[in-house]
Amino acid sequence: MTKAVLPESLMPTHWYNLAADFPEPMPPHLHPGTGEPLAPEDMTPLFATGLVEQEFSRERYIEIPEPVRDIYRLWRPSPLARAPRLERALGTSARIYFKNESVSPIGSHKPNTSIAQAYYNRVDGITKLTTETGAGQWGASLAFAGQFFDQEVEVWQVRASYDSKPYRRMLMHVYGATVHPSPSDLTEAGRAMLAKDPDTPGSLGMAVSEAIEVAVGTEGARYSLGSVLNHVMLHQTIIGQEAIRQLEMFGEDAGPDIVIGCAGGGSNLAGLSFPFIGANIRGETAARILAVEPARCPSLTKGEYRYDHGDVAGLTPLLKMHTLGRDFVPDPIHAGGLRYHAMAPMVSHAVETGLMEARSITQEEAFAAGILFARTEGTVPAPESNHAIAAAVAEARRHTGEPGSGPVILIGLSGNGFLDLPAYDQFL
Amino acid sequence: MTKAVLPESLMPTHWYNLAADFPEPMPPHLHPGTGEPLAPEDMTPLFATGLVEQEFSRERYIEIPEPVRDIYRLWRPSPLARAPRLERALGTSARIYFKNESVSPIGSHKPNTSIAQAYYNRVDGITKLTTETGAGQWGASLAFAGQFFDQEVEVWQVRASYDSKPYRRMLMHVYGATVHPSPSDLTEAGRAMLAKDPDTPGSLGMAVSEAIEVAVGTEGARYSLGSVLNHVMLHQTIIGQEAIRQLEMFGEDAGPDIVIGCAGGGSNLAGLSFPFIGANIRGETAARILAVEPARCPSLTKGEYRYDHGDVAGLTPLLKMHTLGRDFVPDPIHAGGLRYHAMAPMVSHAVETGLMEARSITQEEAFAAGILFARTEGTVPAPESNHAIAAAVAEARRHTGEPGSGPVILIGLSGNGFLDLPAYDQFL
Repeated sequence: MTKAVLPESLMPTHWYNLAADFPEPMPPHLHPGTGEPLAPEDMTPLFATGLVEQEFSRERYIEIPEPVRDIYRLWRPSPLARAPRLERALGTSARIYFKNESVSPIGSHKPNTSIAQAYYNRVDGITKLTTETGAGQWGASLAFAGQFFDQEVEVWQVRASYDSKPYRRMLMHVYGATVHPSPSDLTEAGRAMLAKDPDTPGSLGMAVSEAIEVAVGTEGARYSLGSVLNHVMLHQTIIGQEAIRQLEMFGEDAGPDIVIGCAGGGSNLAGLSFPFIGANIRGETAARILAVEPARCPSLTKGEYRYDHGDVAGLTPLLKMHTLGRDFVPDPIHAGGLRYHAMAPMVSHAVETGLMEARSITQEEAFAAGILFARTEGTVPAPESNHAIAAAVAEARRHTGEPGSGPVILIGLSGNGFLDLPAYDQFL
Repeated sequence: MTKAVLPESLMPTHWYNLAADFPEPMPPHLHPGTGEPLAPEDMTPLFATGLVEQEFSRERYIEIPEPVRDIYRLWRPSPLARAPRLERALGTSARIYFKNESVSPIGSHKPNTSIAQAYYNRVDGITKLTTETGAGQWGASLAFAGQFFDQEVEVWQVRASYDSKPYRRMLMHVYGATVHPSPSDLTEAGRAMLAKDPDTPGSLGMAVSEAIEVAVGTEGARYSLGSVLNHVMLHQTIIGQEAIRQLEMFGEDAGPDIVIGCAGGGSNLAGLSFPFIGANIRGETAARILAVEPARCPSLTKGEYRYDHGDVAGLTPLLKMHTLGRDFVPDPIHAGGLRYHAMAPMVSHAVETGLMEARSITQEEAFAAGILFARTEGTVPAPESNHAIAAAVAEARRHTGEPGSGPVILIGLSGNGFLDLPAYDQFL
């Protein structure tokens, strides 16, 4: 068997909520004005009722609504494959597997949550969603999701990416979304920013402010976020739940020895690893969980664990997380999805309480690993995924016995690199 | 069920050779010098022994070597999905299905033959393959295949595409291939062309000449072709064989009423439709088979059925096919894979003997259909595939009864449009 493909009938019917199983409860989100624990009603102006419930939920399993599963089935369950050619190239005794989220129509894991978010907003009668995007993965995923649930989608894309990375903007247009470079002259925040610096390349923080301003000021509109918050982590857990069943199909009933995911905001890593962390807590498995981030944006490995805002302007709730400070501006590395100043509170809490480890990888290591992966297993990985692959390569190289006799390494392949080829070109 | 996914264990083990079942035998290829029927030994300087055998074979089923199946399993069997949202958008009674070849690591059907060609060349001890490419789909697929079978891959890419469509060139680089703009100063043919016109944008015909010249002049090297020839059609028939089994999984035991594929050189269409044509000939099914080509490159619908060369310079064998003449220069339409002056001899013979129909589609119809498909079923189709989708849309609109009560339409989705987004952008 090369890859384990679950039939649709075995696709998970529930998301898994790690908040139910944390041995120590997570610190609450705090109200930015009062500093008191946030109440659900503080979030409902911006987020759908169903999503706010999930943000605060301690329920272990939350049913995936059938209309969401219906769209998931366009590409899910996603395959989990053994990587025998990569193993041979490394001369490792490890058995390496990868969970392949690159097969979604967008080419990444992001639609797992964009579909759910568009659905819950339609349930509330919302007809328009606004969001920000950097390189465009998240904006494209929300544009894709909006069309299934009658949501007009309006995206503010960081000006520098809008100008230099036109393909994902074009993808958003194909799905019928409106895309503006940010800062724009459509919002007060944007006009103020442009007045200060007409040639600014923009930033995610500024784009967030514009998207929120328009959502708040438009009847029937809300804002949508692609990572960081608890409900986003929740939606991604379908990844790890499928992976558990697929490893069993390979006869790996003891589960993986190590689970490795790349981490920017944290949603891909959480989606892959939280079901395994749950199994660890229940004593069913004893997998090491490894979060891998870029050396140039090292929130988990170099950041402080404290309350901070999710955006530059300080409009979001205060979240307890590993942060480099909301003013931190990362170098323009190629892994656009890993350029965030902080880490999701759930992932941060998992690291802080010893449920997960973290390490960082340089761009050079990451791309070298990605090219090795493409030349052995065929798929060109997203630059973000390359960080997880590089950490797996380093791990596998430590095990040099009889082929197949070593540990089981599971990699999260969060996406493909079709629209990131210029980054590879620059590396080569 | 949204999509039928065959387990790997049910992946076809043999290719299907329609030449065994043609009610009237195909006209033979002719030697370009003598005008006599071509002998296998005439082809072996350029093509692997195993491929030449297949070119002349009348065997009905030819086993797929295990090393080829091993690589196929990286993405095969590919899914076959129902398109219920497209059906609803059209208000049709037809049941529309699509066979999704876009899930390959290259994003199209081309690796089905590049893998086989790289394998048979390695069996012969070959270590280097040369080829030409236009937009880059075929060059990228051969680069992808070469790495699995120790083949150095050298590609001549039409200068205009080399300059204007850098992403697939970058993809070839990731897979370790060498890519030259054509005409180049590396070959006699190229130098002659450049001497005549230093600013020429190049052409596929010129790139073929360069690739052949280098293959012939290099020890241990051969040339590789991505469409047109019989053995290429053969390798693609895994598509249609899978589709037959997958329609049965949907309970469509009577098979499709109409099978629709886009046709440039003909390999995608042949791969999807030949197993159905075989079933038609055996009386098991009564499916209409429809070849769809661009109105601006109408070899099947406007060309002559006669012997012609496959390249501009007249170096290839004479092939009996529908041709616009080897000097025909199509308009620069976006569907780069459909810009060929002629049609594969096997497809031409199928049309000529009434086993298949042909029609043409304008670019505007094609892109409108592709955008409708993306907004209903999620995947952005390759511009080539849009032609098949447009014909299916026109067909489906003629059936307006009770939803689901109409005919079964099967579309070949030959690839995705990730690297063709600028074409969509121009249309929008």
